[in-house]
Amino acid sequence: MANDKKAVEAITPINEDFARWYTDVVIKAELVDYSSVKGCVILRPYGQAIWENIQRILDGMFKATGHENVAMPIFIPESLLQKEKDHVKGFAPEVAWVTHGGEEELQERLCVRPTSETLFCEHFSHIVHSYRDLPKLYNQWCSVVRWEKTTRPFLRSREFWWQEGHTIHETAEEAVEETERMLDIYRTLAEDYLRIPVICGRKTDSEKFAGAEATYTIEAMMHDGRALQSGTSHYFGDGFPKAFDITFADRQNQLRHPFETSWGVSTRIIGAIIMTHGDDDGLILPPAIAPIQVVVVPVAQHKPGVLEAAADCARRLREAGYRVKVDDSDNSPGWKYAEYEMKGVPVRLEIGPRDMEKGQCVLVRRDDRSKTAVSLENLEKSVGETLDALGDNLYRRALENREKRTFSCANMAELEQAVEKELGFYKAMWCGDAQCEEMLKDKLDISSRCIPFQQEQLSDRCVCCGKPAKKLVYWGKAY
Amino acid sequence: MANDKKAVEAITPINEDFARWYTDVVIKAELVDYSSVKGCVILRPYGQAIWENIQRILDGMFKATGHENVAMPIFIPESLLQKEKDHVKGFAPEVAWVTHGGEEELQERLCVRPTSETLFCEHFSHIVHSYRDLPKLYNQWCSVVRWEKTTRPFLRSREFWWQEGHTIHETAEEAVEETERMLDIYRTLAEDYLRIPVICGRKTDSEKFAGAEATYTIEAMMHDGRALQSGTSHYFGDGFPKAFDITFADRQNQLRHPFETSWGVSTRIIGAIIMTHGDDDGLILPPAIAPIQVVVVPVAQHKPGVLEAAADCARRLREAGYRVKVDDSDNSPGWKYAEYEMKGVPVRLEIGPRDMEKGQCVLVRRDDRSKTAVSLENLEKSVGETLDALGDNLYRRALENREKRTFSCANMAELEQAVEKELGFYKAMWCGDAQCEEMLKDKLDISSRCIPFQQEQLSDRCVCCGKPAKKLVYWGKAY
Repeated sequence: MANDKKAVEAITPINEDFARWYTDVVIKAELVDYSSVKGCVILRPYGQAIWENIQRILDGMFKATGHENVAMPIFIPESLLQKEKDHVKGFAPEVAWVTHGGEEELQERLCVRPTSETLFCEHFSHIVHSYRDLPKLYNQWCSVVRWEKTTRPFLRSREFWWQEGHTIHETAEEAVEETERMLDIYRTLAEDYLRIPVICGRKTDSEKFAGAEATYTIEAMMHDGRALQSGTSHYFGDGFPKAFDITFADRQNQLRHPFETSWGVSTRIIGAIIMTHGDDDGLILPPAIAPIQVVVVPVAQHKPGVLEAAADCARRLREAGYRVKVDDSDNSPGWKYAEYEMKGVPVRLEIGPRDMEKGQCVLVRRDDRSKTAVSLENLEKSVGETLDALGDNLYRRALENREKRTFSCANMAELEQAVEKELGFYKAMWCGDAQCEEMLKDKLDISSRCIPFQQEQLSDRCVCCGKPAKKLVYWGKAY
Repeated sequence: MANDKKAVEAITPINEDFARWYTDVVIKAELVDYSSVKGCVILRPYGQAIWENIQRILDGMFKATGHENVAMPIFIPESLLQKEKDHVKGFAPEVAWVTHGGEEELQERLCVRPTSETLFCEHFSHIVHSYRDLPKLYNQWCSVVRWEKTTRPFLRSREFWWQEGHTIHETAEEAVEETERMLDIYRTLAEDYLRIPVICGRKTDSEKFAGAEATYTIEAMMHDGRALQSGTSHYFGDGFPKAFDITFADRQNQLRHPFETSWGVSTRIIGAIIMTHGDDDGLILPPAIAPIQVVVVPVAQHKPGVLEAAADCARRLREAGYRVKVDDSDNSPGWKYAEYEMKGVPVRLEIGPRDMEKGQCVLVRRDDRSKTAVSLENLEKSVGETLDALGDNLYRRALENREKRTFSCANMAELEQAVEKELGFYKAMWCGDAQCEEMLKDKLDISSRCIPFQQEQLSDRCVCCGKPAKKLVYWGKAY
């Protein structure tokens, strides 16, 4: 049994140092490699395959709701970025500037897009003339650049990959509906496919997107209790259209400004998958986006018929629509088990001579490590049921962790106590004043995560200032 | 019949001014819009949908041949770009430079990738250690930037979208095989899917990629007789690995340098589709990549049952796997016919009350405008056969144009005469000397397109200098 490839090394235990565990996993599961540009990572085949699976799911939902893909330029002229005042204030400090093309200095600096509202607006001003041209429901898949100071793979990097939807509508109502529809698509992605429970709600004004009237968000809780904003949807009103002079002739032939939205999910959500489901042995991937859903490991593979039996299992499962890999390399079975556990492959099938005699194989679940002998006759059914059960279990575990770490705090004393005790979501009432948010940030180092759609009345007073409460807010420490 | 959307305007006739015809088509078929960054275009939904169809075909062929997708950073540090001497000489004059991140000046300039050999090499140096790590067969889909002086949509733009494959191998033989394999995939894309006949061959040294040992190409001829390089595949030998210090332990446990390739097809190929198949009425799209393969136009759509019958045709064709659109807008049928002709939709079905009575619809082909009444009973079969026949006819027409415009020139007099007479491919013998290429460029404004794999012996003397000929070369004027 040749085995000169380095054995899988142990990673930092998840509850010893979560940040180091995270870095170990992204490197050892071969999701990313670092590049020589600080803060820019390489998505390796396994990381890219996860992203492509997420893309396929989202793109399908976008197209099913009437959206079309486009591709916008990578550059934004400085003057274009400056057209909407709040927007430029939010983004100008963190963009990368191109000043030279070839040997020549440019007359006007170009920034590498940090987001493309300004480009879409300029394009809409060319193509929207009448109510008949509305709505335009556009999306693009691309990478964007934000010059972050501190970076971590997936969570915060200078370049990241995402989709950005940009839509333009005849009425404010339609635009608001669109904003909500897309947030719900993000919730579906997170909960039904990635098996990450999320809180849906609205951002406070101080946390909303630069230039937006309202920002909606899905907020997930990671294993360590920190919050991760996992997708956002923005309603712009007609602010951008006014700044960019986009008008259309309405049904009464009057010139009016249309209403806009934008919404995005990025490779950050891969960070959420890792930090929601992973464990001491590495990644655990939800089946819907796992590049390999089933790995087949032949045992005693030199014995007659073993490799053929393994290949036959794989063929049958592929025909049933699963993503399957047979590892018939000359690494030891033990090495292979550790390797695919690190990579979070949901189901492992082991098949050797004794299994073959009994007409069975051994099915091992990545989430609870349960081992079951399954009859080869019912292989497709057993695998399908196991993948479903595993996905359900991932969701249940994540929800349990969230519930355990969610604290209802009726007053400041309870809030302080909860924050001191454990990282998590802190539910508390708020008067609506940004100064109270500021104070909680200074005093407890927590920020408002969202004003959830599902409101409760924990008290009638703001947890901070004691004035009448307007809303329940989820507070927490964010990635 | 309301019709306040502007009628389809006539475009410049194709044989009157081919360049204007081209620009008219890309704008009026809504493939692109211009942006405020000179030389950067927007791919509109119809243009992007064509590109996505091409991506799906190519990506499928890449994966079927064992390639994996990755995503590399958008930036290359100046020092990294400079590591391979020929490469930096070729690209440095045409890159965009990022000099500032946020408010700060960078310590080292970063270029926006014009191509990613240097990034892949750096990554390979991290992950390749043993012959067991080879080959790595990688590809990425992205946009790249080259600071071109004169630009035209698809053909030459400062930003363009493409795929770039980068592979690394144990032996030179394997790498050469890979280079040839990928060129053949490009030939398959061009000929079998895009229905564009191509000449496959090798570039002369003066036309090869910066840093390559050999560049292979597929060369297409456009309607006007100009050549379009439509895909290239490069063999690098071990030059890049040496420059980037990539080594591996071979089967004898000796440290050696591996061998590399890269290969790419870009949105330029959409320009090739337009200029190969289009006519006075606009685009004609090969069925394999047409976003809409069949448009169903209801006639007298206010009459009972017409819209239902149209929807039923569309449903049946979709179930049979075709991409279908029903246009039930209140534009006139005539307006719709012109609109989808402009957009190059291969097949139009017209269905009205009289057709319904006869259990038929009228099928109109975009390429030859033939109209046939087809029985609704055999709809799927008729449409499928028509699409196939249309694709074959596009290829045949393009091949005929190429053959008509390909001239065998045994000596300089024949070459001069051919160049003067008509744009096209000029086949002539060459001694292998770059000075003769230079001279033909100066004197006749033609460049070597490729040394075709299928060689002929037109004479034993170089057309230029009269010395012994080494190879037959295709010469032409290129886009």
